[in-house]
Amino acid sequence: MRHVHAVILAGGSGTRFWPASRRLMPKQLLPLAGATDEPLIAATVRRIESLVPPERVWVSTGAHLVAGTAAALPRVPAAHMLAEPVARNTAPAIAWASATIARSDPDAVIAILPADHFIGDEPAFREVLSRALRSAEEGWLTTIGIVPTRPETGYGYIEVGASVGDRVNAATRFVEKPTRERAAEYLAGGKHLWNAGMFFFRASAMREAIGEHLPALAAGLDRIDAAAAAGKEAEVLAEVFPTLPSISIDHGVMEKARRIAVVPGSFGWNDVGSWEVTWEMSERDAQGNALPVGTIAVDAKNNLVKDLSKTARSKRWALVGVSDLVVVETDDAVLVIPRDRAQDVRAVVDALAARGEEDKL
Amino acid sequence: MRHVHAVILAGGSGTRFWPASRRLMPKQLLPLAGATDEPLIAATVRRIESLVPPERVWVSTGAHLVAGTAAALPRVPAAHMLAEPVARNTAPAIAWASATIARSDPDAVIAILPADHFIGDEPAFREVLSRALRSAEEGWLTTIGIVPTRPETGYGYIEVGASVGDRVNAATRFVEKPTRERAAEYLAGGKHLWNAGMFFFRASAMREAIGEHLPALAAGLDRIDAAAAAGKEAEVLAEVFPTLPSISIDHGVMEKARRIAVVPGSFGWNDVGSWEVTWEMSERDAQGNALPVGTIAVDAKNNLVKDLSKTARSKRWALVGVSDLVVVETDDAVLVIPRDRAQDVRAVVDALAARGEEDKL
Repeated sequence: MRHVHAVILAGGSGTRFWPASRRLMPKQLLPLAGATDEPLIAATVRRIESLVPPERVWVSTGAHLVAGTAAALPRVPAAHMLAEPVARNTAPAIAWASATIARSDPDAVIAILPADHFIGDEPAFREVLSRALRSAEEGWLTTIGIVPTRPETGYGYIEVGASVGDRVNAATRFVEKPTRERAAEYLAGGKHLWNAGMFFFRASAMREAIGEHLPALAAGLDRIDAAAAAGKEAEVLAEVFPTLPSISIDHGVMEKARRIAVVPGSFGWNDVGSWEVTWEMSERDAQGNALPVGTIAVDAKNNLVKDLSKTARSKRWALVGVSDLVVVETDDAVLVIPRDRAQDVRAVVDALAARGEEDKL
Repeated sequence: MRHVHAVILAGGSGTRFWPASRRLMPKQLLPLAGATDEPLIAATVRRIESLVPPERVWVSTGAHLVAGTAAALPRVPAAHMLAEPVARNTAPAIAWASATIARSDPDAVIAILPADHFIGDEPAFREVLSRALRSAEEGWLTTIGIVPTRPETGYGYIEVGASVGDRVNAATRFVEKPTRERAAEYLAGGKHLWNAGMFFFRASAMREAIGEHLPALAAGLDRIDAAAAAGKEAEVLAEVFPTLPSISIDHGVMEKARRIAVVPGSFGWNDVGSWEVTWEMSERDAQGNALPVGTIAVDAKNNLVKDLSKTARSKRWALVGVSDLVVVETDDAVLVIPRDRAQDVRAVVDALAARGEEDKL
């Protein structure tokens, strides 16, 4: 059997989790999934371990994030940290990582997994993952589609076609984030799945599809491969990578290629998009509060308090008469925001950037 | 002219300012008056300095508070820290302090001042204070009555009688905290002033009044005086003080004695009763917020954030979409409470006590 490798996409900046998330501490490096101390990226690697051992895990990230990422993944080889000179969206990231893996393992089957998602039912996920890997081995460019549970307008959707295997279907269309009405139709129709950004393919199949649909990217890969053979990859990468087309793998390849498959899955998936979602995912008390151990709550309901400061263990929180509030504290910042405005954290980050407060970004 | 001495009543526990206030750091030791770093008790001593120099200031407090109090008042003699063995309300505190002063200065005129109030117009206060001291020198047991500005039900009132001097009146009655209706009548009638707990008297006049109205207290004072003459005050104080009647000077003396005078005053007085009051007293921005320097506020109105932690200067607060909230942070605790529930901080302190969390009290 071919070796399966995993590429973890870990280039995100995650401003939506300020003040916990920072340029050097993006969402995937934070323990945002409930009560655990495990960073999201560590959970991503751990939960696939029985299918892809850490020595065949690769991480696509930014140069400034390599140190923090490696620290979160002590069992992944340091040489597997693939530092992009600049961020150029997912197609170049996936293409370069796949080309790198193919140099030493040309027959590789590759799983592309976002670093910063939460999965509630890990055994169910592994079953879907196995099915997706089998589909990939058979030559399909395969994705996983999450069975929708609400008319979500924040995700892309995948239209499901005819069955092409055991609970594997052809993917007939990739759809952008829909309107509210369209999302409700998708939910009712049962023919659309959420695009969770997970992709599975033979290295050779992806290279072929890139050659067909993204020739400029393919040409860049050829130059990088040649440089790697000559021992000059870093130098050429720094020159070539910024010139690659900045496009997502969805737009650049999946929407255009033939033999696209989708494996439907239901495994408590969550993209951990905001503090609001962190509250939803957290264990909560009878009043709906997710609070530090020992907090005194009086007439307080549905609040999230996340204390990530060094003094959290010796600190006593007290909430009186407040509801639906998010409070997040780190060593050098505190955020207070209603749960239903959690998306507006971006306004804070923008204000900090406008002020030039680099140490808080 | 007789010497004027001041006795600062500083026995309060101040649970209403948790988490800033603690058993060893009560309200009077905190800088609660707006933007200043000056503890309330230091302001109390500073603002009377031109009338009563620090070397004639005495402080009535609890034994556990002597160290912190002395640190806040470096210019007050250490021997002037009068540590009560147990708290027995204001009559024993004032009586013992007055007796102590009278031993070395039998002709003393004494001003009794609460340690933990705020005064906005200090020159106006000093003018009223001077008038009260003159009245005391003439033999009256004198108090200051604050001209009411609202139908407050949280204070006692003093009924004003005939004029007995230049802007000094006889006090005809001391009234307990009134009902809402009664307080409105007082405000409309113009014959009632707020009792701010400030008293002025000759040491000899107070001793005489105590002898008449609180004979048990007078007998205790005689024993303490005799012990002091024999060099055994501490020992006898520990034995006698707990047996003294626990009663306020208002109830025990002022309501019963003859020749009680009141000096009306308007000088921006505030008893700093809660975090709500701290917000009122603070400098606020155009949106009504009183926030740490540099705070990012987006759609945030009428909030108070008080960061008293060691890391406050390097910490960035961000408030988005919250109004009328109080957030107070210290090194080991954080309180989040709506402004209009600020009085309910007591519930937190009660919960901590019930749990036995001594280090947070």
